[in-house]
Amino acid sequence: MADSNGKRDHFIGVDLGGTKILAGVFTPQLKCLGKVKMSTKPERGPEGVLERVTRCVQEAVDECDLTFDNIKAVGIGAPGAVDPEEGRIIFAPNLKWEDVPLKRVLEKQLGLPVFAENDCNACALGVYETELDPKPRSMVGIFLGTGIGGGIVLDGKPYSGFNRTAGEIGHMILEVNGPKCGCGNKGCFEALASRTALFRKIQTAVKDGQKTVLTDMLGPDLTDMKSGDLRKALRRGDKFVEKVIEEAAEYTGIAVANVINLLNPEVIVLGGGVMDQLADEMMSIIIETARDYALTGTIKGIEIIASKLGDDAGITGAAVLAKRESK
Amino acid sequence: MADSNGKRDHFIGVDLGGTKILAGVFTPQLKCLGKVKMSTKPERGPEGVLERVTRCVQEAVDECDLTFDNIKAVGIGAPGAVDPEEGRIIFAPNLKWEDVPLKRVLEKQLGLPVFAENDCNACALGVYETELDPKPRSMVGIFLGTGIGGGIVLDGKPYSGFNRTAGEIGHMILEVNGPKCGCGNKGCFEALASRTALFRKIQTAVKDGQKTVLTDMLGPDLTDMKSGDLRKALRRGDKFVEKVIEEAAEYTGIAVANVINLLNPEVIVLGGGVMDQLADEMMSIIIETARDYALTGTIKGIEIIASKLGDDAGITGAAVLAKRESK
Repeated sequence: MADSNGKRDHFIGVDLGGTKILAGVFTPQLKCLGKVKMSTKPERGPEGVLERVTRCVQEAVDECDLTFDNIKAVGIGAPGAVDPEEGRIIFAPNLKWEDVPLKRVLEKQLGLPVFAENDCNACALGVYETELDPKPRSMVGIFLGTGIGGGIVLDGKPYSGFNRTAGEIGHMILEVNGPKCGCGNKGCFEALASRTALFRKIQTAVKDGQKTVLTDMLGPDLTDMKSGDLRKALRRGDKFVEKVIEEAAEYTGIAVANVINLLNPEVIVLGGGVMDQLADEMMSIIIETARDYALTGTIKGIEIIASKLGDDAGITGAAVLAKRESK
Repeated sequence: MADSNGKRDHFIGVDLGGTKILAGVFTPQLKCLGKVKMSTKPERGPEGVLERVTRCVQEAVDECDLTFDNIKAVGIGAPGAVDPEEGRIIFAPNLKWEDVPLKRVLEKQLGLPVFAENDCNACALGVYETELDPKPRSMVGIFLGTGIGGGIVLDGKPYSGFNRTAGEIGHMILEVNGPKCGCGNKGCFEALASRTALFRKIQTAVKDGQKTVLTDMLGPDLTDMKSGDLRKALRRGDKFVEKVIEEAAEYTGIAVANVINLLNPEVIVLGGGVMDQLADEMMSIIIETARDYALTGTIKGIEIIASKLGDDAGITGAAVLAKRESK
């Protein structure tokens, strides 16, 4: 307990996803002391999942040799439409949840104040608070992982819009009649540049006879392929993988240009698992393409940068939320 | 002078475009008493054009049997990036202007307070203030004319972003490798659904032998075709024109869905010359397509409506600006 001097001044950040729950313990200065990951088990329903969230928080606190007496508040980023005032999930398609009173249930189980936000808004807030200095007036975070999500921060606050669903940049149509997306439409950004889209493209090409070092690395079925494998293939000079990554970076650059044309934010941050592994390869192409596609004069002075928070963006932002809201 | 009781309580709204200047005189209740139109003559440069703006304002005031003593302030919507605080045009590609101190020059010439905004932001503000009741927390205006522009109103105020260019929705890429746009890119919304795009599509098809009543109406070269001619052709049952309009409405619906996914505004208003003539034909297709393309749950309760202000949106919004800023 030396770390906290017995004070109630630490924060918990929770990232609730469709497959995993991540909980981290943060100091008053937002340094992460430790974290614990658990599977979500969405088939157990809201009650079962929220019990797991509580256990994950307990484990994280214990992991850091602290007790709940050291924790001032808990923040949680959850997928779907979240009402931050009421701390309620309005709907979350990938958990199949509707109208879940996240804040109320967790506050009862944890005995601590709980604050909720949309997961991508939380990620954006984490980047804004811990990676940007000075603070821009407006920022858009674009997170490329299994899917693609976005979060908007205006005047320092998450912007969530009328139905609390703003920032769904993954479903921006970039190519009418493009490849099919999980949402049912065609040509969404997510269907062109997410990890899922990249892997599908590679797997289809390999089935059609495309040669790549990835099959040497992972076997003919490319079992358990990860973003990091693509990076390794690039380093080994795989021209096919290079082209796939290049195309994804170009689509990302076009999406960035669309955001610049429409919202003209001061800073655009790219994050998520794909960027975590491939930022070195993708960032210059993204920036160059964004310059080509943004209308003359609109991109001047706008920063386009990669986040270094990786998978910790969600828990960091959730901890920021806990700190801000419990003041 | 009966109208004004000699009070200094009227407002002027000016819409400065690449081809025309429109100035309107408004009552304290924002009713338009009269307006005057002049050609811009951009070849005369900023000095020559701003002299014309001043004369247009003088003509409009005289037209309404008022004097400058009845005018409290002047608002002006100008194309390009406008700094509203300084009342300066940062750059305006279609006037070929850079760094023009609009406010300072006009205040000197008119002897009245002048306030400036981007033209599409002014249009959006005009719609917001005079057509929406109750006021939404967020609104996006999309204006389809020769080009396509957009304006964003957040918490009652125009949102212009870092470079004062937010709302450039006409250059949102909807179809990578789509038709070429005036901006140099391919597949911009403007290249798919503006009046220019519609007319080009029709003219190309007619050259390739397509039959349409438009050639009966306007001759084989479709000289002086207007949006209203398309409406007349539709009313005469022209299936080809119907298909062209339908496609433009579909692209507009996709653009609306992109805005809903990204910004999730409470209200989306469609205006401009094309909508003025073709709203009856296009609105139901726009709304239906937006519903198809917006992510599940994101469009619920969002109003998508047509503005009735037509070409007066700009002067109305500029008058709103003058009224607000001179309080």
